[in-house]
Amino acid sequence: MTLMEFSIFPVDKGASLSPYVARALSIVEKSGLDYRLNPMGTVVEGEWEDLLRLLTGCLRDMEKDSERISLYVKFDHRRGFSGSINSKIKSVQEKAGRKFNI
Amino acid sequence: MTLMEFSIFPVDKGASLSPYVARALSIVEKSGLDYRLNPMGTVVEGEWEDLLRLLTGCLRDMEKDSERISLYVKFDHRRGFSGSINSKIKSVQEKAGRKFNI
Amino acid sequence: MTLMEFSIFPVDKGASLSPYVARALSIVEKSGLDYRLNPMGTVVEGEWEDLLRLLTGCLRDMEKDSERISLYVKFDHRRGFSGSINSKIKSVQEKAGRKFNI
Amino acid sequence: MTLMEFSIFPVDKGASLSPYVARALSIVEKSGLDYRLNPMGTVVEGEWEDLLRLLTGCLRDMEKDSERISLYVKFDHRRGFSGSINSKIKSVQEKAGRKFNI
Repeated sequence: MTLMEFSIFPVDKGASLSPYVARALSIVEKSGLDYRLNPMGTVVEGEWEDLLRLLTGCLRDMEKDSERISLYVKFDHRRGFSGSINSKIKSVQEKAGRKFNI
Repeated sequence: MTLMEFSIFPVDKGASLSPYVARALSIVEKSGLDYRLNPMGTVVEGEWEDLLRLLTGCLRDMEKDSERISLYVKFDHRRGFSGSINSKIKSVQEKAGRKFNI
Repeated sequence: MTLMEFSIFPVDKGASLSPYVARALSIVEKSGLDYRLNPMGTVVEGEWEDLLRLLTGCLRDMEKDSERISLYVKFDHRRGFSGSINSKIKSVQEKAGRKFNI
Repeated sequence: MTLMEFSIFPVDKGASLSPYVARALSIVEKSGLDYRLNPMGTVVEGEWEDLLRLLTGCLRDMEKDSERISLYVKFDHRRGFSGSINSKIKSVQEKAGRKFNI
């Protein structure tokens, strides 16, 4: 399984990006993949091919009305792991012996 | 105010990174800045100079026992905004007319 | 056409990453896509689907002997543009009225 | 020494970003630090504090006429290394036993 964080936005639509982020999030939601929205991006866990399919869906939707799109993605790919979307935070908190803001 | 997401980790310590992330999070916590940990990074809101001071603190701590360090940072800098660490998610949810997983 | 910059490396192989980068670059080279290597990543221009296929090829090769892989990608997607791998630098230099180090 | 790649652009100025990139590059040039422009960002080598000073200079200049700014930075920090802006590419080419496009 792979953990991915991505942010996608139109460069040609001015400073108010939330309507575009909302559209992308609806596509994430429909994918059925486990995800978490944060103030700077969306983290999704899934199989590699499913994650790429999701990115493609978001891009194809956004290009309908945007001339130029920026997309930033980071992947954390681990053999034989799943559930990392929850376990990574737990593991950090166990190592620190305390809870952090999530 | 500026919103920043960062992830910092040693490249020379193998695949188990949570002890290092825990140390960085403790420095974030001590900074007194508003932050949220997510599975792929930590989002922090603050004045530009305070955010750079935080990054410097995390780097100086990690280089004590790491030979090579990767640090990824994205900044969203908006004039005259504050509280974005909460309001960005709210705004996306309002535009979508629904709640997303956070 | 889409412009993409990516960097991929194993997290579990220590601080010397160049053998792994070399393998990825050989895959880029074989793709036939136009690319430029820089000290922090590789920029590639191509159709969206071809770029994703290239990332998949690099990941599948690296996971053969790496337990954990980090992959960072940024995309600049523009409708109706091609040749951006050269024209973006030209355009910046024209606006500045001077040459920069490339 | 630290190697950094950054890209900075206004989110509220439409799809033509090259005038803003040109201004940032002029600030990089004046810093006296060793740098290379590529189609997706600028790589700079220097001491950590000098790199942060450069980012601050670019941000302060851009916020004069931009309401919202995106800044992406990745750092590769290695103890006891310098000249990496040239040696990383050399090292990859040596491992591959061939030259790549740069």
